[in-house]
Amino acid sequence: MSKKVKVGIAGASGYGGGELVHLLLNHPKVAIARLSAESNAGERLSSLFPNLPDLGILEKTSSVSSWNDLDILFTALPAGMSSRIVSMLPKPHPVVIDLGPDYRFREADDFKRVYHMEHGSPETLPFSSYGLVEGNRESIAGSRYIGSPGCFPTGALLGILPFLRSGFLGKTPFIVDGKSGVSGAGRGLTVDTHYPEIAEGMKAYKPLVHRHVPEMENAMRMFVGDANQVLFVPHLMPLNRGLISTIYLPLLDHVTPDMVGAALLEYQDENPFVRIVENPPNSSHVRGTNRVDIHAVTGKGTLVVMTAIDNLVKGAAGQAIQSMNLVLGEDEMTGLPMWGGFP
Amino acid sequence: MSKKVKVGIAGASGYGGGELVHLLLNHPKVAIARLSAESNAGERLSSLFPNLPDLGILEKTSSVSSWNDLDILFTALPAGMSSRIVSMLPKPHPVVIDLGPDYRFREADDFKRVYHMEHGSPETLPFSSYGLVEGNRESIAGSRYIGSPGCFPTGALLGILPFLRSGFLGKTPFIVDGKSGVSGAGRGLTVDTHYPEIAEGMKAYKPLVHRHVPEMENAMRMFVGDANQVLFVPHLMPLNRGLISTIYLPLLDHVTPDMVGAALLEYQDENPFVRIVENPPNSSHVRGTNRVDIHAVTGKGTLVVMTAIDNLVKGAAGQAIQSMNLVLGEDEMTGLPMWGGFP
Amino acid sequence: MSKKVKVGIAGASGYGGGELVHLLLNHPKVAIARLSAESNAGERLSSLFPNLPDLGILEKTSSVSSWNDLDILFTALPAGMSSRIVSMLPKPHPVVIDLGPDYRFREADDFKRVYHMEHGSPETLPFSSYGLVEGNRESIAGSRYIGSPGCFPTGALLGILPFLRSGFLGKTPFIVDGKSGVSGAGRGLTVDTHYPEIAEGMKAYKPLVHRHVPEMENAMRMFVGDANQVLFVPHLMPLNRGLISTIYLPLLDHVTPDMVGAALLEYQDENPFVRIVENPPNSSHVRGTNRVDIHAVTGKGTLVVMTAIDNLVKGAAGQAIQSMNLVLGEDEMTGLPMWGGFP
Amino acid sequence: MSKKVKVGIAGASGYGGGELVHLLLNHPKVAIARLSAESNAGERLSSLFPNLPDLGILEKTSSVSSWNDLDILFTALPAGMSSRIVSMLPKPHPVVIDLGPDYRFREADDFKRVYHMEHGSPETLPFSSYGLVEGNRESIAGSRYIGSPGCFPTGALLGILPFLRSGFLGKTPFIVDGKSGVSGAGRGLTVDTHYPEIAEGMKAYKPLVHRHVPEMENAMRMFVGDANQVLFVPHLMPLNRGLISTIYLPLLDHVTPDMVGAALLEYQDENPFVRIVENPPNSSHVRGTNRVDIHAVTGKGTLVVMTAIDNLVKGAAGQAIQSMNLVLGEDEMTGLPMWGGFP
Repeated sequence: MSKKVKVGIAGASGYGGGELVHLLLNHPKVAIARLSAESNAGERLSSLFPNLPDLGILEKTSSVSSWNDLDILFTALPAGMSSRIVSMLPKPHPVVIDLGPDYRFREADDFKRVYHMEHGSPETLPFSSYGLVEGNRESIAGSRYIGSPGCFPTGALLGILPFLRSGFLGKTPFIVDGKSGVSGAGRGLTVDTHYPEIAEGMKAYKPLVHRHVPEMENAMRMFVGDANQVLFVPHLMPLNRGLISTIYLPLLDHVTPDMVGAALLEYQDENPFVRIVENPPNSSHVRGTNRVDIHAVTGKGTLVVMTAIDNLVKGAAGQAIQSMNLVLGEDEMTGLPMWGGFP
Repeated sequence: MSKKVKVGIAGASGYGGGELVHLLLNHPKVAIARLSAESNAGERLSSLFPNLPDLGILEKTSSVSSWNDLDILFTALPAGMSSRIVSMLPKPHPVVIDLGPDYRFREADDFKRVYHMEHGSPETLPFSSYGLVEGNRESIAGSRYIGSPGCFPTGALLGILPFLRSGFLGKTPFIVDGKSGVSGAGRGLTVDTHYPEIAEGMKAYKPLVHRHVPEMENAMRMFVGDANQVLFVPHLMPLNRGLISTIYLPLLDHVTPDMVGAALLEYQDENPFVRIVENPPNSSHVRGTNRVDIHAVTGKGTLVVMTAIDNLVKGAAGQAIQSMNLVLGEDEMTGLPMWGGFP
Repeated sequence: MSKKVKVGIAGASGYGGGELVHLLLNHPKVAIARLSAESNAGERLSSLFPNLPDLGILEKTSSVSSWNDLDILFTALPAGMSSRIVSMLPKPHPVVIDLGPDYRFREADDFKRVYHMEHGSPETLPFSSYGLVEGNRESIAGSRYIGSPGCFPTGALLGILPFLRSGFLGKTPFIVDGKSGVSGAGRGLTVDTHYPEIAEGMKAYKPLVHRHVPEMENAMRMFVGDANQVLFVPHLMPLNRGLISTIYLPLLDHVTPDMVGAALLEYQDENPFVRIVENPPNSSHVRGTNRVDIHAVTGKGTLVVMTAIDNLVKGAAGQAIQSMNLVLGEDEMTGLPMWGGFP
Repeated sequence: MSKKVKVGIAGASGYGGGELVHLLLNHPKVAIARLSAESNAGERLSSLFPNLPDLGILEKTSSVSSWNDLDILFTALPAGMSSRIVSMLPKPHPVVIDLGPDYRFREADDFKRVYHMEHGSPETLPFSSYGLVEGNRESIAGSRYIGSPGCFPTGALLGILPFLRSGFLGKTPFIVDGKSGVSGAGRGLTVDTHYPEIAEGMKAYKPLVHRHVPEMENAMRMFVGDANQVLFVPHLMPLNRGLISTIYLPLLDHVTPDMVGAALLEYQDENPFVRIVENPPNSSHVRGTNRVDIHAVTGKGTLVVMTAIDNLVKGAAGQAIQSMNLVLGEDEMTGLPMWGGFP
């Protein structure tokens, strides 16, 4: 077997980082060479993730800037940290695939406006790509910095793009009603994610003002040059993994259900992780996979698209690896689960 | 103490019927005199509901037509059954409060169009009311037949009515994205409600074509004379009790956030079970109560209203009792929980 | 109506304190006069518990020692705090009912041995009682200080005492396999109670060494004068409320199933919150109530007893109120739910 | 690549069958050639399991007796069916690996006594093995018929065998307190597994009389020649997947904690899917894997062993494949997940 690609993960103690390790253990072309954490530095990975083997002691994230022996560096860090680390990495450095927000915008000003902080290495942005493979495949393959999309934008854009690019949609705001499992809120302890506060309950949060709104609007402009506004209400739901998006889109009068179906079929043909399903998708059917299940119906001048993803796989670690596969010139499905267990 | 009102419950083996019994046990003015079931007739109530005391053997629902000793008859039966039973009841008979759909429309044709069956006693419809107390108080108080609203229409209408009647809303369709706990699907065994099929999962169902759409549209016409269309997508969520509705309404340009707030305050003042909350409501905070928690935000020409109810209380048994209280001339809150336990 | 009893709650921001408020709101003889919290002092109760009405601002727990206008003081505080507050209360002070561990032992040394701290007012212990009403009714009624049992000891003792006092049991250790919902671990944020860490999972914790072991052994000595050892393994289960105990007891040869049944019937007759059930009890059938459901089977020289309680009601706030009722000379069931909703 | 082994699955519509398909899709040495179902025959696998790809139409299980082109036949069928099918298969037929109970006993009389029906092909029992690889590796490798253990016996035996064979245990009954996720109860609709009946609840069932008791006792006799009785109480818990067993064993006086630890280390060394963990195992850490996590503590003359498995993998489909690997002469880990995702 040829020499394996060396990857490191900065921020391996969170759920995104842990899922990266889990998935990469099954990837035939890579070897996990380095892992870091912040407050958990010095602990063993298998203490933090008893679901994983003992891959050794976690380094301090501040030492990542000295990791010069890697081919790929995944960063799963709070806003601003990965771009600051990039600015300290000696050149040439590994391709950086960020699961955080630092490379989700092409302009440092956009990042600053949304995250209220300076971008750590604005000079790298011209060499970066938004890591939604379904829509940005070629750009990603040639990038040095990839901003993996947020989980909600992933679920929303996968349902919007096939129809937006087809010119099927009117100009009124798109409505995205998102429902996420609690793992999407991360591993940090908060009252909202304390078990009894959300089990047997559900609620919306940050209605209309979530940071994923500008990310969605920006991505649509980038991919289609179009500028619909997005009304987005995320909801926290009492399950671990899974994200469904119910998307209400203004359908132009001339668009028939057959045209909707044809656009979706074309999208499925182009994208190996896209699957059209006959009924509204259940998030548990994509759990553990990098797949998105899509279903669409029309009525009263509206196109309703429902998508289901695993927020930690297609919504985070999985699509980051999908981007990595493109960078490495591999088939984008390499090492990524297409089918999962149920229930 | 004065003599208690005698009530019977036809269909006491389902979740709506069981919750009726639970709530009525704590009601100071009524005594439960008769209970029926269909396939479970002959069993003890406490075998079917080990959470409840032994109130004796369930009669056969077919015998309900001979129940001539009651003041109030609650019916929690499949579509068409309660109106057929009504047609067989000797006159004068008890006031009928139906938790099923038979009295949710004022016209037998509307019922037939939606439920694909004949109404069992169309001659009684002129004496019936739609049992949404918040908006229909006086009509209910004088009715002989009350059609308690469906759980989703309850959650939706409580969020729409304060603004629709104020003339704040435009003419485009209202979007209601509903999320219900599994008890809303009833006690009958189905694949969809088999534990492993929905635990750790979530999904939409019957998008745009659910029977609650005509009920919502009909109620709005009845209350406000207005005829907006409704785009409704219900979702099944992995919890027992709770129903949240995220409602996207076209806001007229002149309506300010202050006007929205004032309309909501007025609604709260008029309706003892309505409470405005500072954050998007969590369904677990209304569990076990007849309360609705409401929160509203505006943006991009849209009013987003979020409501939370307990689908088995405010969405079923509780509001049926609220209607009964009006019929009996009692305070509408009598015997109904305003505050519940948490978590 | 006669003047209401004034109660205060020190530690109203936790789940035990919140359930106390919820239950006391429905108690016909008391008025909630004062509430305190530690880090949440200065906030409104309804902000911390959106399920509850606005009862005003929480005082600082350190000011509880000046609460001299109460009849009853409930304390729901970490180990050692309530007895220290007691030592500062001016005499005569209200009857103290502690949901924490300070009054669960009659000897200060026992408390110190288990909790590794000094008892704050050992001079009060002679006037104190262990608040398990089923077994200690008379003592509680005459006490000034009541130590409400831990949730696991409650579930275990209710299953053991009817048989231990009957002399049915051998001398080998009693095995108590306890399963608790997550609310039993409190409202403080911990990794173990972060939603994704325990949802869709389950585990034992502190096997054999939990602090509830000496409490159980001590209570058995106190009630029956007998000194069996207890092997106790608690488990954390993915639900909010509910505690079931599966108890394996050495059955003496001469004890027949009929004798077991008779002892249980007698226990049920003596104790209004005890109910024998025909099948192993489901914790969801006692949710929201002060009831314990019990079922017992025998085989291979062993008596297996299964009990189900609501850990926040019978296991905490409810039985504290049950004790209060005795102190006040009321029926012990006053204001306490015997039957709850389901599901 | 060499020619793939052809496998068929009789009973692919249940959870065990579905997990077999899921796992075998990732197995490098086999091809799924045939699938059957009973009431779902004629449907597509991907309709029954939207988590799986479209592998075609399910045949009728009654036609399995004509499947003469397979190397391995997995049967996941109700008691008695697989042995009846075996009796109809033309000779020579594929190796049969049964996930049901037909080959869990070596004597037809034992099967009859427990399952109250005749064994369908008693003449095959001498060529059969009990499929618990950890303890029966060599026998399985040479067998034509393998009875994969029940999920509870798997969890219990993996915790008992390392100590029983070491002679550490006394003669009093072993106590096995088992807790299973709901998928363990199968895909058939029952009241007990209707979502609202068990979500937010938990209960024991069939205490002391579950059919897995004779299976456990029989396996211990077979492996160690010893005949301890088992007191077994299974519990249904509100999660999908996962099975933990808390096992209370009489420890002989001379056995030290070090000896316990050494026996466990030896067991881990011999068995690649056994892992000793530092804390009581959480079932979510083995989800999706064929691993068992074990932790043991001692006290008061008792050895408490806690094991965690995924009931559908190590407890069913996974260990059936582990047996298949032995039959095929492959490494027993081939195609089986050792590490899973979390949460």
